[in-house]
Amino acid sequence: MSIHTKQTAANPERLNDRARMLISCPDGPGIVAAVSRFLHEHGANIVQSDQYTMDPEGGMFFMRVEFDLPQLQKNLPDVEKDFAAVGEQFNMEWSIRPLNRKKRLAIFVSKEDHCLVELLWQWQAGDLDAEIAMVVSNHQDMQPYVESFGIPYHHVPVTPDTKKEAEQRQLELIGNDIDVIILARYMQIISPLFIEHYRNRIINIHHSFLPAFVGGKPYAQAYNRGVKLIGATAHYVTEELDGGPIIEQDVQRVSHSDDVSELKRIGRTIERVVLARAVKWHTEDRVLVHENKTVVFN
Amino acid sequence: MSIHTKQTAANPERLNDRARMLISCPDGPGIVAAVSRFLHEHGANIVQSDQYTMDPEGGMFFMRVEFDLPQLQKNLPDVEKDFAAVGEQFNMEWSIRPLNRKKRLAIFVSKEDHCLVELLWQWQAGDLDAEIAMVVSNHQDMQPYVESFGIPYHHVPVTPDTKKEAEQRQLELIGNDIDVIILARYMQIISPLFIEHYRNRIINIHHSFLPAFVGGKPYAQAYNRGVKLIGATAHYVTEELDGGPIIEQDVQRVSHSDDVSELKRIGRTIERVVLARAVKWHTEDRVLVHENKTVVFN
Amino acid sequence: MSIHTKQTAANPERLNDRARMLISCPDGPGIVAAVSRFLHEHGANIVQSDQYTMDPEGGMFFMRVEFDLPQLQKNLPDVEKDFAAVGEQFNMEWSIRPLNRKKRLAIFVSKEDHCLVELLWQWQAGDLDAEIAMVVSNHQDMQPYVESFGIPYHHVPVTPDTKKEAEQRQLELIGNDIDVIILARYMQIISPLFIEHYRNRIINIHHSFLPAFVGGKPYAQAYNRGVKLIGATAHYVTEELDGGPIIEQDVQRVSHSDDVSELKRIGRTIERVVLARAVKWHTEDRVLVHENKTVVFN
Amino acid sequence: MSIHTKQTAANPERLNDRARMLISCPDGPGIVAAVSRFLHEHGANIVQSDQYTMDPEGGMFFMRVEFDLPQLQKNLPDVEKDFAAVGEQFNMEWSIRPLNRKKRLAIFVSKEDHCLVELLWQWQAGDLDAEIAMVVSNHQDMQPYVESFGIPYHHVPVTPDTKKEAEQRQLELIGNDIDVIILARYMQIISPLFIEHYRNRIINIHHSFLPAFVGGKPYAQAYNRGVKLIGATAHYVTEELDGGPIIEQDVQRVSHSDDVSELKRIGRTIERVVLARAVKWHTEDRVLVHENKTVVFN
Repeated sequence: MSIHTKQTAANPERLNDRARMLISCPDGPGIVAAVSRFLHEHGANIVQSDQYTMDPEGGMFFMRVEFDLPQLQKNLPDVEKDFAAVGEQFNMEWSIRPLNRKKRLAIFVSKEDHCLVELLWQWQAGDLDAEIAMVVSNHQDMQPYVESFGIPYHHVPVTPDTKKEAEQRQLELIGNDIDVIILARYMQIISPLFIEHYRNRIINIHHSFLPAFVGGKPYAQAYNRGVKLIGATAHYVTEELDGGPIIEQDVQRVSHSDDVSELKRIGRTIERVVLARAVKWHTEDRVLVHENKTVVFN
Repeated sequence: MSIHTKQTAANPERLNDRARMLISCPDGPGIVAAVSRFLHEHGANIVQSDQYTMDPEGGMFFMRVEFDLPQLQKNLPDVEKDFAAVGEQFNMEWSIRPLNRKKRLAIFVSKEDHCLVELLWQWQAGDLDAEIAMVVSNHQDMQPYVESFGIPYHHVPVTPDTKKEAEQRQLELIGNDIDVIILARYMQIISPLFIEHYRNRIINIHHSFLPAFVGGKPYAQAYNRGVKLIGATAHYVTEELDGGPIIEQDVQRVSHSDDVSELKRIGRTIERVVLARAVKWHTEDRVLVHENKTVVFN
Repeated sequence: MSIHTKQTAANPERLNDRARMLISCPDGPGIVAAVSRFLHEHGANIVQSDQYTMDPEGGMFFMRVEFDLPQLQKNLPDVEKDFAAVGEQFNMEWSIRPLNRKKRLAIFVSKEDHCLVELLWQWQAGDLDAEIAMVVSNHQDMQPYVESFGIPYHHVPVTPDTKKEAEQRQLELIGNDIDVIILARYMQIISPLFIEHYRNRIINIHHSFLPAFVGGKPYAQAYNRGVKLIGATAHYVTEELDGGPIIEQDVQRVSHSDDVSELKRIGRTIERVVLARAVKWHTEDRVLVHENKTVVFN
Repeated sequence: MSIHTKQTAANPERLNDRARMLISCPDGPGIVAAVSRFLHEHGANIVQSDQYTMDPEGGMFFMRVEFDLPQLQKNLPDVEKDFAAVGEQFNMEWSIRPLNRKKRLAIFVSKEDHCLVELLWQWQAGDLDAEIAMVVSNHQDMQPYVESFGIPYHHVPVTPDTKKEAEQRQLELIGNDIDVIILARYMQIISPLFIEHYRNRIINIHHSFLPAFVGGKPYAQAYNRGVKLIGATAHYVTEELDGGPIIEQDVQRVSHSDDVSELKRIGRTIERVVLARAVKWHTEDRVLVHENKTVVFN
């Protein structure tokens, strides 16, 4: 079906020589100068650059640089080798990603489909510049829909007794080439072992404005408290339930006349918008994590 | 596919005896008393009621009443017959719709799919309480996708030379039992004759915050003017281009760094949200039209 | 100074014969009919009417009616006497307020002035239809400013040792003719005895999106959690800290680059807007309280 | 009065050695490297840096750099002298402003006070880091209020016959050391001659979401068109009425029940918020103008 098959980058010819560099390091004088001089001397042209210093006195420095480098594929290995010295000098964590090496996503889903549908819609519209490598679910409901997009669907049932085996099976499926796991209303607790494998690379959507209404049934909690706005929160998963670094949040106005089912209906739209933004930003290398917070360049 | 086949009303048993009444008339004393007494004496219980008086001195009165009436199907004809006297007394335009007689929609679409996809998604999620009777398009692209929902798809090509015949064909397809036509980015001018047939029953989505950027290429116009918010407007179609009664509008923040294609991308989300809200409100009898304005009870 | 002295109602002549009725009672058939018939038979014309039924099966009914009654001042006592029978029939809590009997406010403030300044600005602009009877503060800082509006200012120092005497002094100042107390960043815990005197008539502004960040230093809590939106909450004060019925909430987007002092700066604008809305709605009889929730007709 | 006299910078000691550089030039390779190397070699540390390239092929480059330079006051003249060569090499328009040289504002106001009150409130709260050098008005109403802040107030009456003389008098009052003129609902057309003197340095607040409702009575226009959102636009004044570069816009939801006077009331809050943001951004050197658009780094 035509709706499922398009997926072309907006300006593919431009992107072949473009890359993004992410840097985190202790703040200090001369970092921007060193990075921009390095890129200039290696023939790269900076297209966009963002930086942020957290707590100017003795703080952390974060930078995102998008640059064009002629014959990127051929030249990138040398650039990376040479940049190692700069990275060492400033004690940097850094990475460079050519834009034509798209990030690979695995989407975990349970029975509620709205977040998955939104991600697939944005992907097929060309708005999500990534590969959806697979969908993994503990239910079979979405299989025909997902496969109609040409995306592999893996059904991995989870019961209280088989949780450990199920996670083992999921890890095998994912293998070594998945960049980020999206919990698109997956509704299962992920084990610490699994989290450790994908530190800051598992994105969950929680259906409340965290830290309000941690845990289960947040819409019922919101109804009982009589709040006037409900929200959703996309965050990286950590060992603390609903406690990981927040990537994005948004809210919508509600009123006394909205019962729990109406809150859920309104919430579905916030959830899918917030999760899609977080995934988009992650795939565009806009999110850096420091301790329990994110720096989002957008 | 499971995603396509559900579509159950939230509380079907409740709705069998529920109806909605819409009233417009010149303002005057005693209208609310007359209507509520009438309903009470006929055994109906008012569940929700909204009223609005436009310009208290010599103005117009608008009312929406939702009520439960035991054995509605059997009793409604008598209620309608009896209410005629009340309607005459106050010079009312009025109508009553039992909620289990769902409104029937025809969706017109061209090549851009986002508004159609949103409507279908909300419909299959049970959030749009209506029947989608057909999709009509001047292109064939969406046919397999629409038909996978079990919805008839009619391909009616339109060329400058065949415009008149095409509209004739569309009117035949629609027949007599379509309540409202949705132009979900249909991109064709509708003829005055067609509009006259469906006065205040054709909903269009215009991709700007009207009355800014009337006409073609509104995102290019917005980019050139350097606005800091872009928007979308859902309105009833009248003979004046982009000039009909506005049902709903919303906006999203943009910045200098968003080029026209990025404005279009952001705009797509606003367009589908705004159109879906307008369609939902129309199907829930929340919109009354007076001259070139709407009263929206929500 | 001219800025301080205007304060005229928008359409004073209209309001002399206008009143508002608030009703809460167990739901049942015929309530709207009974109320609207009563008003019609007593010569009143309904200008606006809102109703809401919480949980249709065995729930609560809430109504707000604005009506014009010729020679209101002369006729209101009879109307109230006659309505008692209707009230008894449906087991109503009800009240009628003529609009020209403005609500009287006492504003409690500490050192931070932004909420007070906003309320005074809206009041002198004619947007807050109430009398500001007095400002009470545990500091003297704002005295000249408040008195320049012609509003009495009472300095009641509060120390840990004199808290009880201070509250006694405040109760004496307030006397019997204050309708509502506004805690405009008052920063002192109110005693249960005081709260009992003004049940659902003390409005506090909490500087977070409750129930997130209950208690002290909410902006520091928000910064540490790395939230992407900060908010404010106006609520009625109950014995549970920051736990009373919520009247209004709003939020503003923040980013990683906003430190605590910037969050406070952004927060000040949300706080004053949210508090001013809540006070406006309360003074316009738009807020009804049921258990720990509000019904807000707006 | 205490409310009027504070006005201390948040961290005054920090700001003494801090400056901001603004750059606009044709895009080309090596600009960021050249600027950051220059600053590093002159002992400056970049605290924050934003850049934007409009239309990467053959477009324009914009940059805002905030840096700390030890003994700024002593060293700045040499830095500026040396930077001239860099500026010439890249054909830059550039400027450097030490943060302790605050921008000087002249506020023009007519009879409506809300925008002026907001600016004065933000200024006295320390949120507007500028000097308010004078208020100029064609009416005397606000004189005592403005003077209570210790700010000079100049009454310059304007009649159709004396418009030219009035502008001459205003230019004399302003003299040579005003950085920006704020039209805080001044309601008088400014002459081309006056505009030429202060190109991109006169900020006006228009009470609509431009380009909708250009010209007079925008709230009446909005009411007649039945829009569902109303807005305000802060822009630099050019010879084309309401057509200059837009700095900031925002909107607020309205409904059918809001008449023109209610739209004005709601609009006042949007106007003062939007104008205050634009003025804040201008005073923080966040706004660059290119042709008829702004680049806003925030």
